[in-house]
Amino acid sequence: MSSTAGQVITCKAAVAWEAGKPLVIEEVEVAPPEAGEVRLKILYTSLCHTDVYFWEAKGQTPLFPRIFGHEAGGIVESVGEGVTHLKPGDHALPVFTGECGECSHCKSEESNMCDLLRINTDRGVMIHDSQTRFSIKGQPIYHFVGTSTFSEYTVVHAGCVAKVNPAAPLDKICVLSCGICTGLGATVNVAKPKPGSSVAIFGLGAVGLAAAEGARISGASRIIGVDLVSSRFEEAKKFGVNEFVNPKDHDKPVQQVIAEMTNGGVDRAVECTGSIQAMISAFECVHDGWGVAVLVGVPNKDDAFKTHPMNFLNERTLKGTFYGNYKPRTDLPSVVEKYMNGELELDKFITHTVAFSEINKAFDYMLKGESIRCIIRMGE
Amino acid sequence: MSSTAGQVITCKAAVAWEAGKPLVIEEVEVAPPEAGEVRLKILYTSLCHTDVYFWEAKGQTPLFPRIFGHEAGGIVESVGEGVTHLKPGDHALPVFTGECGECSHCKSEESNMCDLLRINTDRGVMIHDSQTRFSIKGQPIYHFVGTSTFSEYTVVHAGCVAKVNPAAPLDKICVLSCGICTGLGATVNVAKPKPGSSVAIFGLGAVGLAAAEGARISGASRIIGVDLVSSRFEEAKKFGVNEFVNPKDHDKPVQQVIAEMTNGGVDRAVECTGSIQAMISAFECVHDGWGVAVLVGVPNKDDAFKTHPMNFLNERTLKGTFYGNYKPRTDLPSVVEKYMNGELELDKFITHTVAFSEINKAFDYMLKGESIRCIIRMGE
Repeated sequence: MSSTAGQVITCKAAVAWEAGKPLVIEEVEVAPPEAGEVRLKILYTSLCHTDVYFWEAKGQTPLFPRIFGHEAGGIVESVGEGVTHLKPGDHALPVFTGECGECSHCKSEESNMCDLLRINTDRGVMIHDSQTRFSIKGQPIYHFVGTSTFSEYTVVHAGCVAKVNPAAPLDKICVLSCGICTGLGATVNVAKPKPGSSVAIFGLGAVGLAAAEGARISGASRIIGVDLVSSRFEEAKKFGVNEFVNPKDHDKPVQQVIAEMTNGGVDRAVECTGSIQAMISAFECVHDGWGVAVLVGVPNKDDAFKTHPMNFLNERTLKGTFYGNYKPRTDLPSVVEKYMNGELELDKFITHTVAFSEINKAFDYMLKGESIRCIIRMGE
Repeated sequence: MSSTAGQVITCKAAVAWEAGKPLVIEEVEVAPPEAGEVRLKILYTSLCHTDVYFWEAKGQTPLFPRIFGHEAGGIVESVGEGVTHLKPGDHALPVFTGECGECSHCKSEESNMCDLLRINTDRGVMIHDSQTRFSIKGQPIYHFVGTSTFSEYTVVHAGCVAKVNPAAPLDKICVLSCGICTGLGATVNVAKPKPGSSVAIFGLGAVGLAAAEGARISGASRIIGVDLVSSRFEEAKKFGVNEFVNPKDHDKPVQQVIAEMTNGGVDRAVECTGSIQAMISAFECVHDGWGVAVLVGVPNKDDAFKTHPMNFLNERTLKGTFYGNYKPRTDLPSVVEKYMNGELELDKFITHTVAFSEINKAFDYMLKGESIRCIIRMGE
């Protein structure tokens, strides 16, 4: 039992007071975990586009003041009543989605969309009592996707916390909490390319590069990156991408360009942009008879996916995935092991690191398109 | 070697001289098979909607005079040069699609869409020499989908002929050449429902009933039939359908009705109508997390499949199938064995039989919606 268990902890957190305004490092009070919750000491966190979208709050429901952050690694400080799979001192990754273990999704081998703990971007409070665990001089500060890792301490539902190998470096594996698993799992768990196959990756941001890494690990021989920014190809080579198509360089639809490059279509395609046009292209560029396309990127609310039904009848498959179909508690420990045994390369995703006091720099790097992942060191 | 091998055979065939006009039983000359071809003596054939569509030629390319028919059972009379997997006397089912054994589709475990022998409804001649094997006093009579089984003898590409157990009754297993395998395979090979699961079948015609039969064989516990004709439910019960929804009986979309009946959606849906609205409903009625919808029905040329991409991202899968993903030569023998061992029930699909001379009655039964399958006995 830590000496802080059951006590309010006062620590530093980066608070977003208003949409789009720089975060402010504040002293916040973090309440102890309630039943079914865990309080984590965050050691490393990284910035993901989703943090930025909700911080900008353009087209998203604004909810402020709020503590963002959802990719992180930390150590369990204390646990609430009824938590049995975690204990103080455990190394852990908090995740924006969870695994209650009881619902039909958790009991299904195929789904990771837990009914209770599925992502809810509009909720700023804990499920247990609809209250926040963060406050500044009595003013509640809202949570973000149940994680709020831009704080030295945070409270998370225990179903959203994966216990991991304590030998694994948290400053590297923290990126598995969101984007990297999302892309990696889309390929290895859902698209499942065979060795020697061809895979098209739409979008070469962090998620797309992770999808490419999944194709590389799967032994795909042709990994075709598709992006509107040609300069991304050079970096993408590190992730196994060995051919590149910029749709802007062609007069015909990119699905036709890819079909011509690949004698009728790729074996697998993974869409990581959220653009509806890219989704349609990703589906239509897979080979008839056996092609599988996987949608990862989050579309706009009013988008419509539209294609001729014969594209399905010619034996193409279209699937979507959420968090790469990983069940956080069940599956993350084995992903960490893949990193530990060298199969999965994570270091190449980490292009920047900053001290917690410089967290706004991480936003700048992302907004300028300079970073894949920027690690924020909480301890300095 | 039969005495007719290498000779022109004169026999009876039902010739369609004009779109929509009754077939006429004529004496036709059937040339011997060329290299890679087989001449079959047809003993039983059955009528499928596809024959009717192309005979009506509404919206389809008209090609007359033509001999229709593509569901049949017969015996190999003679084989052309280079045919090694069949010999005279073999019991066989001709199929409208084929298996060359050499192309990328035939070599793929996942596809049955042979590059060489894939269905071509516009072609009225043999691939080998672009000629017909049928003629009447020198006038060529066109083939239909490479089978033309409304003839006592027909010539078929050897890749489109499945050799089957000679103990199997051809007057029953002839229905496996098209519709029944199409529906059955859509469920057992593509949708793959687990025992105890729920399956929605859109369209309770022959193909839909075969899809239901596949769900019954798979051990699905809830098989929900969806059809605009409520009187079909009674017959469908024989095929395992145990719940029924007529979209006309509800003010809300049928996908919503089904979701409410099944606590969020069915595990699997199989669409057997060809209606674009039914395709969309079939996809949108499957459960998030694990639901799989399979499209079977052939849409109109200008149809567009349209849905919100979040329906995919919530881990639904949409697939299409062609001939139930069966490879004709490789897979049909084992489907016949499923009938022989009692697992697959075929007799209930056969509602009518007629003599060859009465073949136009089979068209009447189908056009009036009275028959599931009408067997035409060639030998009488």
